[in-house]
Amino acid sequence: MTMTITAFEASPDEGEGMARDMRVRWALEELGLPYDVRLLSFAAMKAPAHLALHPFGQIPTYEEGGLVLFESGSIILHLAERHAGLLPDDADKRARAITWMFAALNTVEPPIVECEAFMILERDRSWYRERLLMLQDRIRVRLGQLSDRLGAADWLDGPFDAGDLMMVMVLRRLEGWGILEEYPNLAAYVARGEARPAYRRAFADQRAVFEASQAGGSGEGENA
Amino acid sequence: MTMTITAFEASPDEGEGMARDMRVRWALEELGLPYDVRLLSFAAMKAPAHLALHPFGQIPTYEEGGLVLFESGSIILHLAERHAGLLPDDADKRARAITWMFAALNTVEPPIVECEAFMILERDRSWYRERLLMLQDRIRVRLGQLSDRLGAADWLDGPFDAGDLMMVMVLRRLEGWGILEEYPNLAAYVARGEARPAYRRAFADQRAVFEASQAGGSGEGENA
Repeated sequence: MTMTITAFEASPDEGEGMARDMRVRWALEELGLPYDVRLLSFAAMKAPAHLALHPFGQIPTYEEGGLVLFESGSIILHLAERHAGLLPDDADKRARAITWMFAALNTVEPPIVECEAFMILERDRSWYRERLLMLQDRIRVRLGQLSDRLGAADWLDGPFDAGDLMMVMVLRRLEGWGILEEYPNLAAYVARGEARPAYRRAFADQRAVFEASQAGGSGEGENA
Repeated sequence: MTMTITAFEASPDEGEGMARDMRVRWALEELGLPYDVRLLSFAAMKAPAHLALHPFGQIPTYEEGGLVLFESGSIILHLAERHAGLLPDDADKRARAITWMFAALNTVEPPIVECEAFMILERDRSWYRERLLMLQDRIRVRLGQLSDRLGAADWLDGPFDAGDLMMVMVLRRLEGWGILEEYPNLAAYVARGEARPAYRRAFADQRAVFEASQAGGSGEGENA
């Protein structure tokens, strides 16, 4: 059964792998699954054909036969439950790995995305400097707690799993901000994720899409 | 096997059912499962004993034998996967219901929680009025998209499931803001959720905890 995901035709992150298709690409590479990519312009993302797949007009989506999913967390959970490699076999350990997926998406990511949007949309406002420090401190609260939990371990709960994949991707959003480096064990954790061969393949694939968009390349891709 | 969740000893929402234990209580009531509640003071939530269960020092947690989970999304998914009543049997429908859980938590909730925190923490700042309108408009973008998808249906994707439970709970955070009412089908959707007998039992139980805290009551509860 062919699996097809959607991604930005011209990613606003300029090929840095911050767009959410990167998470799904990484999961597919960890699981060794081939997939197709359908690239979308910003206009196409808000058009009825795409809104029928994704009610919020975003990427990625996931199509497999008649099944259509959205939300990177849901897509990765779906893949990880059906293919070995990203979730432990033991039921309790599995539930704990899934807990870390939700923690990445609902507890750690929101203050980071809030600050990210603030830095883009409110840079010229009079309150920018004062609020930026506030928002960064809220991120530090979460990072401090996460750092305490990770301690000297390589991954959050035993071997690398879908929870680590999601947490590494969420923490990567902080690259270049100078905050993650205040927590050396978290910076090393992200580096360990980025060093995985599956991560590097996924990163190269999304990078190639951005480079093709700069060169005026075609809008379809395939990753095997 | 006894299931135990944690909740606020004195909920900051004053028994309005906005605290995240309410989501898990509702799920447990839908599934007809008895559970125990361990109530925590704010100090206890940040103490080492609780941080060992929940690295971010929040409620709810879930304990069942040796298993400890946190994150309301993960707890509800765990319960719904093991007990009939909150997820469809069909695999594709199940994956779509789980997609709505993630959409509630990672796409719809973050701008609402951002605005909620802003209203509490920055009410006295010079920028309050101007930013409040901006944040409310960002919420409207999501609500408009969700309203379009729901249309005239009772629930998001077939019969009521865990995705609806989570989405109703997230939308409930808007009660009293006057925004949800701009989308009559969403307001009716939330009202349908709140009318379910399981919701009402869960609401009454968390309410009783708040009322006991006002009366100087004990800190332990049991819900059968």
